[in-house]
Parts: sequence; C-alpha cells; structure tokens
Amino acid sequence: MLTPSEVRAECRRGNLTTNSAGYAPGYAQANLVILPKEHAYDFLLFCQRNPKPCPLLEVSDVGCAEMKRTAPGSDIRTDLPKYRIYEHGQLTAEVTDIRDYWKDDFVTFLLGCSFSFEGALENAGLRVRHLEKKCNVPMYRTNIPCDPAGVFSGNLVVSMRPYKPADAIKAAMITGRYPNVHGSPVHMGSPADIGIADVNKPDYGDAVTIRDGEVPVFWACGVTPQAVLLASRPAFAITHAPGHMFVTDVPNESLACA
Amino acid sequence: MLTPSEVRAECRRGNLTTNSAGYAPGYAQANLVILPKEHAYDFLLFCQRNPKPCPLLEVSDVGCAEMKRTAPGSDIRTDLPKYRIYEHGQLTAEVTDIRDYWKDDFVTFLLGCSFSFEGALENAGLRVRHLEKKCNVPMYRTNIPCDPAGVFSGNLVVSMRPYKPADAIKAAMITGRYPNVHGSPVHMGSPADIGIADVNKPDYGDAVTIRDGEVPVFWACGVTPQAVLLASRPAFAITHAPGHMFVTDVPNESLACA
Repeated sequence: MLTPSEVRAECRRGNLTTNSAGYAPGYAQANLVILPKEHAYDFLLFCQRNPKPCPLLEVSDVGCAEMKRTAPGSDIRTDLPKYRIYEHGQLTAEVTDIRDYWKDDFVTFLLGCSFSFEGALENAGLRVRHLEKKCNVPMYRTNIPCDPAGVFSGNLVVSMRPYKPADAIKAAMITGRYPNVHGSPVHMGSPADIGIADVNKPDYGDAVTIRDGEVPVFWACGVTPQAVLLASRPAFAITHAPGHMFVTDVPNESLACA
Repeated sequence: MLTPSEVRAECRRGNLTTNSAGYAPGYAQANLVILPKEHAYDFLLFCQRNPKPCPLLEVSDVGCAEMKRTAPGSDIRTDLPKYRIYEHGQLTAEVTDIRDYWKDDFVTFLLGCSFSFEGALENAGLRVRHLEKKCNVPMYRTNIPCDPAGVFSGNLVVSMRPYKPADAIKAAMITGRYPNVHGSPVHMGSPADIGIADVNKPDYGDAVTIRDGEVPVFWACGVTPQAVLLASRPAFAITHAPGHMFVTDVPNESLACA
C-alpha cells in the first residue's frame, strides 16, 4: 500500500495513470477543477451556494501549483493519474501531465469525492452495490436546479445506491456526518420525483440492480460542478479524468463532523 | 414576539434600533459584511479557508439588496437595527439605514453568529455565564493565525464561556453540530496556550468569573472576519454595529448537521 505522497510521486513519475479507486485507502481523494482567475469568483460562489454537490476541500492561491492545505509538497500539474483539457466546453485532450498547459493565472479547486463516504458506509457494514459489482456508480441528471452564481447555472446531478429502508436511513445518518464529501442524501424513493425517467438508464456510469424491498437512495454528485462548468463554455478549463482523482493527505475520518 | 420578517420591517421603519439579542428567538441572526466587488473574491476565499470564525450563511449577488436565500423579501440596506460605516479601516459613521451609502457593486456577506449555538447550549441545560450576568461575551485576540487569502490575514479572535470539564465536553459536542455558527471549540484549558495573557482582561466584551473547578472554553468568534477585514484598510466597508445583527428566517435548529 502506498501512502498519499507516494501515490502522488508515482503519478509524477508517470508510473500511475489508472483509475485511482483503492489508491491510499483511508485518505480523501478529490475532484479537480482548474480555471483562469477571471472565472474563479463565480465558481467559488457557486460552490458556496451548492455545498452538497460542490464541497470544497481546498482552493489554491492564484498560480500556486502546490496544494498546501490538503497535500503539502504536491504539484497539481503532475500528481494526478490523468487530466482532461477543455476549450470552450469541448474536450480537446486527455493527458497525464499539464505542465505544458499551466498558466500563472490558474486557480485550482479541490472538491470532496464520494469515495470517502463510501468507505464510511462500508466501515458501518453497509454494502455498496456498484463496488460489489465492480462497476461505476449510476448517476442521473435531475430536475432540481442548483442555486446559480454568475455565469454558472444548471441542474443537480445525483449518484444512486440502493438499500432496504432501514439501511437507507442508516446510510443517511452516516453520510450526514460527512458534509465535506456530499453529506446526507438529497432524495430517497421515487426517481420520478426528481425528474429521473428510468432509474435503469443512468446518464453517467453504470446501471445497478434495485432488488425487491430496496429503495434507490440519491446523493448529490461531484459530476454536478463539472457539468455546470462546461455548460457555460469557459475558454479554458482542466479537470481530472473521470475516476482519476487527486489523492490528498486528509484522512477520510477527519472529514466527519461532530 | 415578532417574527423575523416583522423584526426586519420594524427596523426598516426605524422603530427598532437596539441590540438584537432576543429578537425573534429560535431564528439565526447574522453578522454583516458589505464590500465592493473588487474585494469580494479575497473575502469569500478567506471565509472558505477559515470556516470556524467565518461561517457563511449567504453571499449576495453583486448589487442585490435582498437576501433571497435566508430572508426573502428583506432589504439589507434598512433591515438591521444599526450599521457601521468604515473608510480605509476607520469607523466614520454609525447609522440605522445605509441607503445613502449603497452602490451597485456591493456584495453582502452574512455570517453565522454565536447567538444560535448559545440557544442550543441553553436548550441542552448548559448555562451561558455572560447571558446570566447580562453582559457581553468575553472575546480575546489569540496567537493562532488564520489561513490568509489575498489581502486578508490576521489572527483568530475567540469568545470564552466557562464550564466544568464534563459540561465543557458536552458543550463541545453540542456546538460541533452547528458548523455554520462557529462549530466546536478551538481550545479549552490554559489561555496562555493560545496567546491570551490574562483571561480576566478580554480584548472585546466583558470579563466573566471562572469559578473553581471550571475551565475556560474558547470558540472561534465572528469578530475575526471584521478585525481581519478592517486591518487591511479597504477603501469602503459596512458592517453591523456590535450586537445589532440581521435577523434571518433560518431556524437555528435547521443549521444542525446530522
């Protein structure tokens, strides 16, 4: 098992370029958004207004590539397994190093990821269906509007995990202790209530079976800020490649509220 | 008892200009900071990085005087009992209406206030010494640096409430449930540990007695963002007058995390 800083060093050397699930277990992994300063205020305000889909773990100083608060000694330009480059909202490249793209006016946003709360669910004895099936979590666009901020607006994207009602309640309590990694669910029960036409046809990720006696439980999803960001077609943006997260030094358990 | 919107309406009519403690009990009152847009990014980032002293309840759109999220129908220019006007970090006026000062590039920040968690302490049967003495809470400058952001930096200011150790632990658990109103304490025990030379000589507010067997318990205080803001000498800023807060429609209990 590598430590978080060892994971980042291996990414930096180009030796780790795969999905980061399971890297440095017990430590928070983060969604990445890098934007020029001109868009940073609106995006920071969007995150402040929408903390469930956009829980901020760290916002860098302008042009600073070290994540001083959550990963001292890191270099955000090299320390992820894979990045995506977007120009005017269009994906233009997928790379393992962004040093050639870096500019001094970039601001880096790290956002909490559901890997952390899934660990808490498993530690409490609650199984996570898509992890058992070794597939991606199913994700859906909803009809729930986010609170807009400046140029950024759009609807909430949610992830879904099925549970029997008593376990769904337990899962709500457990994840509610982790507001910095999406917190408690936003809905449980009828998918139609939140604008999901067919729960077996997710908009992102893979479908999972909802067994007899189970209800689908929906959490705010970190795909939301990316979807909202790209819909506004910023001239330039960098994100992590899906599932290829930034591994921080922050223990998941330290994210729990009292 | 007036409702929050009735309190705001009475302020607007000029009929309420006193300390707001006890107005609309059960509803969150907020610290106010109004800044021109040019300083808003740095201040928003400072709050993101220092959530214990600077828990954001709402950040307005630029130039918008209605606090749409926490007090629909409000007008931030008239709905507080009293305001302070600062120019280049100096207090230049104390007024009950800021319509004459309002500019279209102003951004309003509402920050959580310890009135909310004191209600939770009292509801749990924990007495609050300064409330019993009908004086202000004692507040102290510490040697704990805030995480700086742009032009804003400075040390944490804390408030203090004395408790016997078992009650101090209980108070920590209770307030930890309210991260949006300063959350759990930052310290308990020796004042010298955090740079307080004499706990009987607070830097702000009034001294209270620490009885035999009690320890001082220190919470991050909403004076911190005001002190940090004014130390940077912004050309213009407006805050609430001490103790003369903005009354929101947000029930205190809704601020509790799971």
